[in-house]
Amino acid sequence: MAYIDRVAACHVFDPSHYIPFVVDDRMIGQVHQDLAERMARWCGHLQIRDGLLRLSNRLATFHDRTAAMAEIAGQLRDEGRIKAWRDEPYAVREKWGAPVLFNIERGAVPSFGFEGYGVHMNGFVGHGNDLHMWIGKRSPTKPTAPGKLDQMVAGGLPAGIGVMENLVKEAAEEADIPEALARQARPVGAVTYCTETAEGLRRDVLFNFDLEVPAEFQPKNTDGEIEAFFLWPVEKIMRRLQETDDFKFNCAIIVIDFLIRRGFIGPDEDDYVEIIQGLNRKEATIR
Amino acid sequence: MAYIDRVAACHVFDPSHYIPFVVDDRMIGQVHQDLAERMARWCGHLQIRDGLLRLSNRLATFHDRTAAMAEIAGQLRDEGRIKAWRDEPYAVREKWGAPVLFNIERGAVPSFGFEGYGVHMNGFVGHGNDLHMWIGKRSPTKPTAPGKLDQMVAGGLPAGIGVMENLVKEAAEEADIPEALARQARPVGAVTYCTETAEGLRRDVLFNFDLEVPAEFQPKNTDGEIEAFFLWPVEKIMRRLQETDDFKFNCAIIVIDFLIRRGFIGPDEDDYVEIIQGLNRKEATIR
Repeated sequence: MAYIDRVAACHVFDPSHYIPFVVDDRMIGQVHQDLAERMARWCGHLQIRDGLLRLSNRLATFHDRTAAMAEIAGQLRDEGRIKAWRDEPYAVREKWGAPVLFNIERGAVPSFGFEGYGVHMNGFVGHGNDLHMWIGKRSPTKPTAPGKLDQMVAGGLPAGIGVMENLVKEAAEEADIPEALARQARPVGAVTYCTETAEGLRRDVLFNFDLEVPAEFQPKNTDGEIEAFFLWPVEKIMRRLQETDDFKFNCAIIVIDFLIRRGFIGPDEDDYVEIIQGLNRKEATIR
Repeated sequence: MAYIDRVAACHVFDPSHYIPFVVDDRMIGQVHQDLAERMARWCGHLQIRDGLLRLSNRLATFHDRTAAMAEIAGQLRDEGRIKAWRDEPYAVREKWGAPVLFNIERGAVPSFGFEGYGVHMNGFVGHGNDLHMWIGKRSPTKPTAPGKLDQMVAGGLPAGIGVMENLVKEAAEEADIPEALARQARPVGAVTYCTETAEGLRRDVLFNFDLEVPAEFQPKNTDGEIEAFFLWPVEKIMRRLQETDDFKFNCAIIVIDFLIRRGFIGPDEDDYVEIIQGLNRKEATIR
């Protein structure tokens, strides 16, 4: 599969099947039409008007909205609609940098198409053309994408924790990276996409970090989420991306972003411009 | 001016004033409505139909299209509509990686809103948080943006020359960089934008390169296009970007892209996601 197809796989979204979800007069999500209609029937807090699914404006505070959304998420769980309930509160915002409107169980986020923030860290050894990357293989028991290839460290951003703090925490849990080393990671950009998955709509912003680790460093998983780590030369990773479907859909484009920034994919590639544009699609936002 | 405003300044474009320009049934440009109507009156090769400005399909070869477009560009020059005639052929494509449809004088490109390719190279010294960048000050006699701040090396991509070859050529002309050093530059991505300027519509794709130069290296302009070079710490450049209007509009966002990739602007910035999305706007394309 060409790099551009990996990018395209992160943008499988037909807006005509979705209704914007409005809270406090802000469009903050995209809900599948069938689900929106069903929820509006059984939930007194929700109403469809002028083609928009609206949370009642009587729910005017963080606390009231959080309680109402917990009720709705619980009902979806009871119906078996939420595949991966995590017992982890997630903070919903209109957009990055805006105030938190309410919290909701992270597993419910794709049902509403809220903007989902996460951190992904490329761990690498070497420099220039002589680079190796640490690649994680996800545990076969992960609720999403079991057995797929992943970054050295990655995770969603739980409510109430900063991006760097979350990176340090995930680095410790997923790869046993000491805090002092993890804090050397540098932010290097973000990828944004909007795509339909088995869980629902993933409308994500992933913050990317690069961390150069010492040649002798060996990551070690401590939370059971990663089954194995491999230190592969970039060329091998490029072949895997193109010849197999081994990488998780979003981890693939984080690697492609790394390959672009580090000069392994350059303007000689016919799809260069479209690949880069596909890593950050404004259309993925609903404003 | 905040970083996000620098990015917004590269996206000043109201499509309702423009008509797509169609060649060989492909939309390859955007022409201001007034100009399109006037050209269609005096030029037998052009016709407006169904809201599109079309170059006659009888012009079926590279050679015929190039001759017809040269005639049109010459007329625009004689009318004084082309501010910066450069006597430099530019290759027009539907998009990067697609075949060249015809050549045209580079100074005429903004009149038609063709996709404009260029190379910009960030020259830097140091690493991590201790970085200096080489900044060029454009000559006061440049036809566009005289006296503004620029990258160490930048230039449009003339017809018939590869991206890396052009970078090496511009590096020699603009900064007297030896070929062996220039070839160490690494491609690191691209920025795309579409904005109205004094010259017309700039619908550009700029290929970005980073080049680490030795601490003792001193760029020296050889073609009269750069008046002076400064080696500034990144913090000083960040202040200049925010507190002055010294940088040329597109050079500003090349620097911002560098600051994002190198971790000087990170997720703590409220506008982080919008800045990144603004560096590559798919809407800048017309497909």
